[in-house]
Amino acid sequence: RVNADRLWDSLMDMAKIGPGIAGGNNRQTLTDSDAEGRRLFQAWCDDAGLAMGVDTMGNMFMTREGTDPDALPVYIGSHLDTQPTGGKYDGVLGVLAGLEVVRSLNDLGIRTKHPIVVTNWTNEEGARFAPAMLASGVFAGVHSQDYAYARKDPEGKTFGDELKRIGWVGDEEVGARKMHAYFEYHIEQGPILEAEGKDIGVVTHCQGLWWLEFTLTGREAHTGSTPMTMRVNAGLAMSRILEMVQTVAMENQPGAVGGVGQVFFSPNSRNVLPGKVVFTVDIRSPDQAKLDGMRARIEAEAPKICEALGVSCSVEAVGHFDPVTFDPTLVATVRKAAEDLGYSHMNLISGAGHDACWTARVAPSTMIMCPCVGGLSHNEAEDISKEWAAAGADVLLHAVIETAGI
Amino acid sequence: RVNADRLWDSLMDMAKIGPGIAGGNNRQTLTDSDAEGRRLFQAWCDDAGLAMGVDTMGNMFMTREGTDPDALPVYIGSHLDTQPTGGKYDGVLGVLAGLEVVRSLNDLGIRTKHPIVVTNWTNEEGARFAPAMLASGVFAGVHSQDYAYARKDPEGKTFGDELKRIGWVGDEEVGARKMHAYFEYHIEQGPILEAEGKDIGVVTHCQGLWWLEFTLTGREAHTGSTPMTMRVNAGLAMSRILEMVQTVAMENQPGAVGGVGQVFFSPNSRNVLPGKVVFTVDIRSPDQAKLDGMRARIEAEAPKICEALGVSCSVEAVGHFDPVTFDPTLVATVRKAAEDLGYSHMNLISGAGHDACWTARVAPSTMIMCPCVGGLSHNEAEDISKEWAAAGADVLLHAVIETAGI
Ligand SMILES: NC(=O)NCCC(=O)O
Ligand SMILES: NC(=O)NCCC(=O)O
Repeated sequence: RVNADRLWDSLMDMAKIGPGIAGGNNRQTLTDSDAEGRRLFQAWCDDAGLAMGVDTMGNMFMTREGTDPDALPVYIGSHLDTQPTGGKYDGVLGVLAGLEVVRSLNDLGIRTKHPIVVTNWTNEEGARFAPAMLASGVFAGVHSQDYAYARKDPEGKTFGDELKRIGWVGDEEVGARKMHAYFEYHIEQGPILEAEGKDIGVVTHCQGLWWLEFTLTGREAHTGSTPMTMRVNAGLAMSRILEMVQTVAMENQPGAVGGVGQVFFSPNSRNVLPGKVVFTVDIRSPDQAKLDGMRARIEAEAPKICEALGVSCSVEAVGHFDPVTFDPTLVATVRKAAEDLGYSHMNLISGAGHDACWTARVAPSTMIMCPCVGGLSHNEAEDISKEWAAAGADVLLHAVIETAGI
Repeated sequence: RVNADRLWDSLMDMAKIGPGIAGGNNRQTLTDSDAEGRRLFQAWCDDAGLAMGVDTMGNMFMTREGTDPDALPVYIGSHLDTQPTGGKYDGVLGVLAGLEVVRSLNDLGIRTKHPIVVTNWTNEEGARFAPAMLASGVFAGVHSQDYAYARKDPEGKTFGDELKRIGWVGDEEVGARKMHAYFEYHIEQGPILEAEGKDIGVVTHCQGLWWLEFTLTGREAHTGSTPMTMRVNAGLAMSRILEMVQTVAMENQPGAVGGVGQVFFSPNSRNVLPGKVVFTVDIRSPDQAKLDGMRARIEAEAPKICEALGVSCSVEAVGHFDPVTFDPTLVATVRKAAEDLGYSHMNLISGAGHDACWTARVAPSTMIMCPCVGGLSHNEAEDISKEWAAAGADVLLHAVIETAGI
């Protein structure tokens, strides 16, 4: 078993970097806080005897040597970046549990055949730069590095410039590494494990996603002196599209979600009807046909809603992944580890996207999940118990030993 | 008649300060550009022989002496501040036409019995600091200066600090001045004069307004892993309130408007359901009963919409004025001036709020309007012709001479 206290202490220490305003974290990718978090993680890895490699996307690979010089490494990864008002565990748990696995192996004097590499992927959250899981996507060949470097945050700063600014452009070519297997341990971010009273989620699939960024162009005009009949009201069109997205998601129950987290009104002045409204629709389903059907319907109905108001409408897909099926052998390994350790478990479909969704394209991959209180995540109040954290880390330890061999 | 070219040249010169991004202006109140605009206006007034007084709200009063030492001044005023993406004429025309009246009187060697004071009111737009017409409101005793100084912009900077920062806190007590009469000349900002082919709007009334700032509190949560049934979606509640405001305004036709120009999602991240949405509803009507009826209905229905979604809802009135009736004698003076000058004219109700709405509480007040292209305002494309500008200035000149006496 892992050292539950040590894992918890490391989680709490990392949470001191980039504190939020309500007990959580604001350690968004490629900020100074991100750089500070990376340095702390690097120092811990140094102490544990891991050798660091960094690629040109800033992904950090911390290697524990194996006994077989020809064996490909087993990777354990997740991310240290957070939402602007994020929790202390989303992503961080997976990285620090990877470190805890290595620390435990060190304590126990266990050497594995395959090397073990603990990984911190850059910009998983996609909060500052869309899409999410950007750097693992480049690693898996889904995006080009040029595309990634050109992504802009809301202030117009590019990913490439910001990565350079914080000093974390490495020299490794992205995606050059080959993986024997990839494990990612994460909090569920949903309510099922807690509701079902299970310690461990054995993640078999991840639902697919579309991020549809709408740009609605109306006519900026005075809210007082512009008659109702003369308005070209992009804000009203946005409202109707939000309602329509809700309807589409509800009509696709069960197994679908849809919503909007980001809206920009322009010029965003109380007495000016917005000339431009930009917002991103987030739709997801584990069912490919449902996912694509929802997208098609939203993209068909939104222009009609806009046309009725004289508003013009354009849409760009700024994020996408298809539903993922994780590697059956690794899934079975995780299930058996939970079984052997005496943890209650159940199969789970991940509701959120994860770097494992991209590594699954280039290596056998799977995930382990632990419950979180009230299913709450992307909220500073995100919470888990020390016992929950440790249970998943135990399962990770056993599954990694099984896969890396001794 | 005024010098149309000189008035136009001054408008174009002022528009060079705080240029916008699309041919208009961003000279928001208490910015460095506002200070620069004030200095240019001050220099022009100096050249025209006017003496400056500035009160503790930063209102600028530029005085041309009268022949009767006991006569109260006739005021001509409007504002030099603009929306973030504002036009070149909204407000500016009224101030510079006031200056042009003085320049014309100087050219003609005409001395009036009553002094004439050309006024630039601080923060008319209310874009940076709600409410609109803030400084004329303090002048008229509607708001306290403490209240005004404590108003915050979206970055949290206060009116008081920013007024000090740009160096325009004067030494005069606000509201100490007494007015014989107040004239405000403004572009219509609506479509009626152009549609009716009239040169001059004789403004008899101004419609009343409520700005209702809603704060909706939902639960921040992951857009992907939070089931539809577990969402406490403040963004969806906002959408439904926008639609409801539209319905309420449409059901009060004719003679009512309602809309939303400003929306803030928090944390405004693509994959986070907003925990907080703040937005301001702007409703107006010249009919007091309609105005208050719309407010009551919106404040009754919004909580129901929110309750159905589990969202909590609070509302604060951040701007308000009742419908205004302008002084019948001054209105008749304006109508007669248009008549005498051979300009076509019609009665008009102002759709926008103006500083004249507040001065009307402490002095006989009225307004003159000229058409604007397509009724468009609060848009950088706002446009008028030199002839339109001059016609209203001619009427202003004659009405002021009539009222100030020679
Ligand atoms: N795990 C997680 O929250 N990832 C962010 C990407 C997503 O929106 O699913
Ligand atoms: N004239 C003008 O646009 N004033 C701003 C206040 C309002 O919203 O009516």
